Amino acid sequence: MLEKYINAAAKRVRADIVLKNATFVNTLTGKIEEGDIAITADRIVGIGNYEGAKEYDVKGLYVLPGYIDSHVHIESSMLSPEEFASLVVPRGTTAIIADPHEITNVCGMAGVEYIYKASQSVPLDVHIQLPSCVPATPFEHSGAILSGKDIEANICSNEVFGLGEFMNFPGVIGADGDVVRKLEAAHNAGKIIDGHAPCVLGDSLNAYLCGGIVTDHECDSPEEMAQKADRGVYVQLRHSSSIHDIAKNCAAVNAGNMSRFIMCTDDRHAADLKNKGHIDDALRTVVEAGLNPVWAVTIATRNAAQCYNLKWRGAIAPFYFADLVVVDNLKDFNARYVFKDGVLVAEGGKPLFDTSKRYLPAAVLNTVHVNPLKPEDFVLKLKGDKARVMTLNYGTILTGCEVLPVRSKNGDVVCENDILKLAVVERHNYTGNIGKGLLKGYGFRGGALGITIAHDSHNIILLGDDNASMAAAANKLKEIGGGMVIAESATGKVYSLSLDIGGLMSSRSADELIAESSALYERAYSMGVNKKLAAFMTLAFLSLAVIPHVKLLDTGLFDVDKFTFTDIDAD
Amino acid sequence: MLEKYINAAAKRVRADIVLKNATFVNTLTGKIEEGDIAITADRIVGIGNYEGAKEYDVKGLYVLPGYIDSHVHIESSMLSPEEFASLVVPRGTTAIIADPHEITNVCGMAGVEYIYKASQSVPLDVHIQLPSCVPATPFEHSGAILSGKDIEANICSNEVFGLGEFMNFPGVIGADGDVVRKLEAAHNAGKIIDGHAPCVLGDSLNAYLCGGIVTDHECDSPEEMAQKADRGVYVQLRHSSSIHDIAKNCAAVNAGNMSRFIMCTDDRHAADLKNKGHIDDALRTVVEAGLNPVWAVTIATRNAAQCYNLKWRGAIAPFYFADLVVVDNLKDFNARYVFKDGVLVAEGGKPLFDTSKRYLPAAVLNTVHVNPLKPEDFVLKLKGDKARVMTLNYGTILTGCEVLPVRSKNGDVVCENDILKLAVVERHNYTGNIGKGLLKGYGFRGGALGITIAHDSHNIILLGDDNASMAAAANKLKEIGGGMVIAESATGKVYSLSLDIGGLMSSRSADELIAESSALYERAYSMGVNKKLAAFMTLAFLSLAVIPHVKLLDTGLFDVDKFTFTDIDAD
Repeated sequence: MLEKYINAAAKRVRADIVLKNATFVNTLTGKIEEGDIAITADRIVGIGNYEGAKEYDVKGLYVLPGYIDSHVHIESSMLSPEEFASLVVPRGTTAIIADPHEITNVCGMAGVEYIYKASQSVPLDVHIQLPSCVPATPFEHSGAILSGKDIEANICSNEVFGLGEFMNFPGVIGADGDVVRKLEAAHNAGKIIDGHAPCVLGDSLNAYLCGGIVTDHECDSPEEMAQKADRGVYVQLRHSSSIHDIAKNCAAVNAGNMSRFIMCTDDRHAADLKNKGHIDDALRTVVEAGLNPVWAVTIATRNAAQCYNLKWRGAIAPFYFADLVVVDNLKDFNARYVFKDGVLVAEGGKPLFDTSKRYLPAAVLNTVHVNPLKPEDFVLKLKGDKARVMTLNYGTILTGCEVLPVRSKNGDVVCENDILKLAVVERHNYTGNIGKGLLKGYGFRGGALGITIAHDSHNIILLGDDNASMAAAANKLKEIGGGMVIAESATGKVYSLSLDIGGLMSSRSADELIAESSALYERAYSMGVNKKLAAFMTLAFLSLAVIPHVKLLDTGLFDVDKFTFTDIDAD
Repeated sequence: MLEKYINAAAKRVRADIVLKNATFVNTLTGKIEEGDIAITADRIVGIGNYEGAKEYDVKGLYVLPGYIDSHVHIESSMLSPEEFASLVVPRGTTAIIADPHEITNVCGMAGVEYIYKASQSVPLDVHIQLPSCVPATPFEHSGAILSGKDIEANICSNEVFGLGEFMNFPGVIGADGDVVRKLEAAHNAGKIIDGHAPCVLGDSLNAYLCGGIVTDHECDSPEEMAQKADRGVYVQLRHSSSIHDIAKNCAAVNAGNMSRFIMCTDDRHAADLKNKGHIDDALRTVVEAGLNPVWAVTIATRNAAQCYNLKWRGAIAPFYFADLVVVDNLKDFNARYVFKDGVLVAEGGKPLFDTSKRYLPAAVLNTVHVNPLKPEDFVLKLKGDKARVMTLNYGTILTGCEVLPVRSKNGDVVCENDILKLAVVERHNYTGNIGKGLLKGYGFRGGALGITIAHDSHNIILLGDDNASMAAAANKLKEIGGGMVIAESATGKVYSLSLDIGGLMSSRSADELIAESSALYERAYSMGVNKKLAAFMTLAFLSLAVIPHVKLLDTGLFDVDKFTFTDIDAD
């Protein structure tokens, strides 16, 4: 094989493909250069003046290395890996570090295997992290448990790239036994460990990093980012659907620390991928915010390749894999052509690969295991007239908590003043657990919203002002094998969307999912949901007990900062 | 083990060692920072405010990561690996990429094994490259041959880090069969391949890099360096004993391409290591030449760790190995303390480890296999009165060639006008081959100089103005098992130094070797050798057929540019 590359580079044979008259970003030296880019088989073989069997004149366009999403939960797109690829590859993404944390919380190792196998048919490098924290905390009930022993048993698999984001940061800092066992297993296997350490700085950061953890995507400010970069962290500029701080945070990047930054999307749903984009949208956003475009491209490509030791990726140079994006300019990042391993895989924003045959094993279907719910299951009886009410922090997934006056009637809370009931119904093992809380600021009224995506244990999470609607929503979710629902109290109607893969993802096409989801979102907004929120996805993060400050689990209200339960009654 | 680090970082237990009040170079972010550096066992566990069982107050000093020499032939020091370490570790070097190319040309795989085993007892990471070009060219006779098949058989060994500098650059660019086989073997084993590509640019560079080659240490100018960095090469700033262009070449480094540069010494002998230094001397030199000291340190540490994927090396951050150098300032780089894997291994320039017991296997001894030489063996008969005479390029190892008038008498060249006879005597297999040439500019007169170090096949190379002295020198070299000699024609005396390990290295201490060598060098200079030359080491490079432009092999005069033999007769 090397002979073929060398012969083409030395012009003894013609290259397979040549991008003629390219202007390209040299992510190794920070230059914008010009020249023909010659490709033979899967690699770039030369920069200079070349002829090819197939030539593309890219004069006036910019050629960039394929983008690398350094941390993404494919499940958050609600799409199968195949359909996810059909949206992100045409945007210029050619590799992702996928953490199948969500599906694994529902299906265990069968979830990891599903993502791996489903990804094999698409022209996207999907590097799969073994989820480190299933469940995310020992305080909740998920569909599976991956213990230290399980991590040891699976980390060396060739299907496994590394260990996924270590959300249990108090466990790392405290050197808890099973946590250390997981870290040791990955460390001894020579595999990379991803981080998740919101607001962890100083000695705690030192301790967290001594777990062998390399990355962090939970920084809340440029200052936190810069401090973490100083301590050797590969800091992730995140551009998710729920968190919109990348324009602010990219101010952390400077000439000295630039090599410590990488990009990720973490959680991004189908409609955003389709309508706004993926890493390309992150690039647009940071460049608009003033980040040097060559640095931005380097962060999205070379730095991630370096962090994850993706050999011969992330740059345009001889022998590097021909993962290339041809864009209009370094402002819009509008992708004209995308090449993956030397093959044209997308043109004009459309995939040139077929994703209609999708892998769909029985192990990830039919995963909502609850008994029928009744309206009285959602009665919330307080001891007094004050309660700890969860609050929202628009544009982030952080939550707060305020002690507020709450009126009750007939032994049940009255939903008024934009305070709604929130419920988390365990859905994996028929335990009948229902955690109940109150939430202010959602805006919704006249029924219930429900979804089987509820980070990270993915129980059923429901929001509403009416017990009957909440029960109807829950029962509909069981009926459709998981998904999203709206129950309207006035009409008794229930609108739904099935997410049949683990209750998280749709087995249908991206277009179908987006259309149905869009309709459901519109309906939710029409019922008052604050437009600053993602009607369903914001809901899905209200049970994520590794993000400050207060969350709701199937086992009750949880204080993330104290890492223990707290009482809803404030008197 | 992780538990121990985490507990120390979190201050639940005391750190083993703390460098209090450190000012340190953060090679990850380009900052100079302040804080205590806490070490537990072999790793840095925290930066901040720490207490340790043992504390060093380093106020006012600078702490740097241990230096990495990215390409060195230990043999060129003429010292055993143990004694080499005793000189470089106290200077701050904590890791080297060693290419045992010289001893392998003499002893084959027994040479590789010798370097590996001898390195195990010293506090220096010695990463051993499998020499790729033994012999360096197919045109000469070495003591061993490593074919593609041999590379395949050995590259996967745990003792082998990668494939050593691929000097046969025409073979790579031409995609020669056995060359490609070697490259494929290393590539398939996932091992790094070092380069050696003087003046190779443009399409030829593209082709060379398509061999999967990563580095180059043969650049002759800042312009060549910058062009190679653009094509993705890790460009080595070399600070050898024979080549003095690092001050000039470091001008190639800029903010954009800085991450593509690493440092190496390639060939550096004992006296230079002892009196001037190792990578520390390179740092002094480039900083004096105006290179940003933080960049210089980064180039000497982090960049090399990144290039060679030396995990958790090259930076001062939590979980990084505690390979640290404490220096006076960023100008002199005078090393006060050196820590290797958390152990104080040198203080005040002195090693704290014992190298008096040195590994010395029979396989590397008694390696000069020639029959007795006679004066008439060195007669050089020309056809006419003009000859191709090799010329020197002071300060580099490049040679030239000029057609000059040369007088003969009794069918033998008369050495005059600073033109001397040069002879390469095959010494591995009693072939009796003697290559003969002429050299201008050495300055020597009154006898002969000889040495069994003659890159890269390490035959005997002799220089002289008197046939009897040349024969006496050769015979003495056989007698002492290889080494360096001076034969004085006026007195008939022969002065010598034994290099009993492969005819390349001394089994004695560094101090002994340096003293004897120094005496021999002084004697050579007293006999007229131009002070711009390294009396013996310059000689040792005159047969190196992979460095432009004209060299002498045991098989005759060789034109490197045309990669073929040339005739000494110019008429």
